[in-house]
Amino acid sequence: MARPALSPTERSTPRRHRERAAADRAALDAILDEGLVCHLGFGTDAGPVVIPTGYGRDGDILYLHGSTGSASMTAAAGGAPVCVTVTLLDGIVYARSAFHHSANYRSAVIHGQARPITDDTEKSHGLRVLTEHLAPGQWDYTRPPNRRELAATTLIALDLTEAAVKTRNGGPVDDPDDVAAHQGWAGVLPLHRVWGQPQPADDLPAVVAVPERIRYRSVPT
Amino acid sequence: MARPALSPTERSTPRRHRERAAADRAALDAILDEGLVCHLGFGTDAGPVVIPTGYGRDGDILYLHGSTGSASMTAAAGGAPVCVTVTLLDGIVYARSAFHHSANYRSAVIHGQARPITDDTEKSHGLRVLTEHLAPGQWDYTRPPNRRELAATTLIALDLTEAAVKTRNGGPVDDPDDVAAHQGWAGVLPLHRVWGQPQPADDLPAVVAVPERIRYRSVPT
Repeated sequence: MARPALSPTERSTPRRHRERAAADRAALDAILDEGLVCHLGFGTDAGPVVIPTGYGRDGDILYLHGSTGSASMTAAAGGAPVCVTVTLLDGIVYARSAFHHSANYRSAVIHGQARPITDDTEKSHGLRVLTEHLAPGQWDYTRPPNRRELAATTLIALDLTEAAVKTRNGGPVDDPDDVAAHQGWAGVLPLHRVWGQPQPADDLPAVVAVPERIRYRSVPT
Repeated sequence: MARPALSPTERSTPRRHRERAAADRAALDAILDEGLVCHLGFGTDAGPVVIPTGYGRDGDILYLHGSTGSASMTAAAGGAPVCVTVTLLDGIVYARSAFHHSANYRSAVIHGQARPITDDTEKSHGLRVLTEHLAPGQWDYTRPPNRRELAATTLIALDLTEAAVKTRNGGPVDDPDDVAAHQGWAGVLPLHRVWGQPQPADDLPAVVAVPERIRYRSVPT
């Protein structure tokens, strides 16, 4: 399926390190699919607010949700501009000078207006996307939301039309004089995410085994 | 040393899950000290922008930095309200219903006005704090910034006076009917960060060993 090209604007075009800006839809999707939490930014009368929240991607739509009692979701669903950022930290860059220390990372910064999803069918679909992103395989494994739960959930959708992808990878970029003079180590210390041992709920009968899809859940890196 | 108490305001007081809000200065410091990247939110004429960036804490001051050519840093340093959020994702909560799926996490949401640091001595101090947070032990191990590098760096400081800490931990909180009816697994899949094998720079002589503080860098949790 053809995907709409991203349309970086003045707002979303990185002004520095343009070589790091890969305005590439596949890169955006890969970051969103690998991340688990996004940071949602929205404006208030008192200034900007940034909160961490779950999300899920379905093609060109990003879904976010929260409680109907959440001031953040209410503010974000109002149609004002929002910014959603997903960052994957891949390592720390140890250089020969303090100045050239850096981090290897991939980030996606998405701009748009969020629209509230109120139709129960679409809301249920969006929550499936969100749940499957957070915990793959769980939507069909567990009880779906009832009407009361749907009513208690605010779901918002954001079109993936304006976004900026930035990445840094590779080793330190040191000044030649520092490379010649420095006697110590320089390089990259990679950072990975790994799943730990599944911890059964306190009220789970001991006879229930951990499904393989959970025990061996993959962590892309 | 006595620390100023946090002063949650209407803006920074979570309206939901107040039991998760531990307005506790030690908890704030622990999150900031364990995190590696923050998400900085600031307003623009076109709406909010959220970018990932490094930071460092010195007592009651949070330092952030960027290039003087960075539009984000210029905007954030202008004295308008900013929001800095650090999130540690600790695991995914697998429940018996889609609705009760959740994430275990710790987050700190800090509000304030950032002030630019222009004095070279204070700027150098702030960059030391930042560098030591990103890569402990490196400030004294590598060449300090020269005047050109200091001039090319925007450093901003944010007082830790208004912040909200939220945490979720523990297993799923399921409806009793679901606990009785569901035959499958429920619990928590913990998520950890681990350092990989240090990767030497391409231009590093093979004879240079990796310092132990890097090879055995600790990852809290």
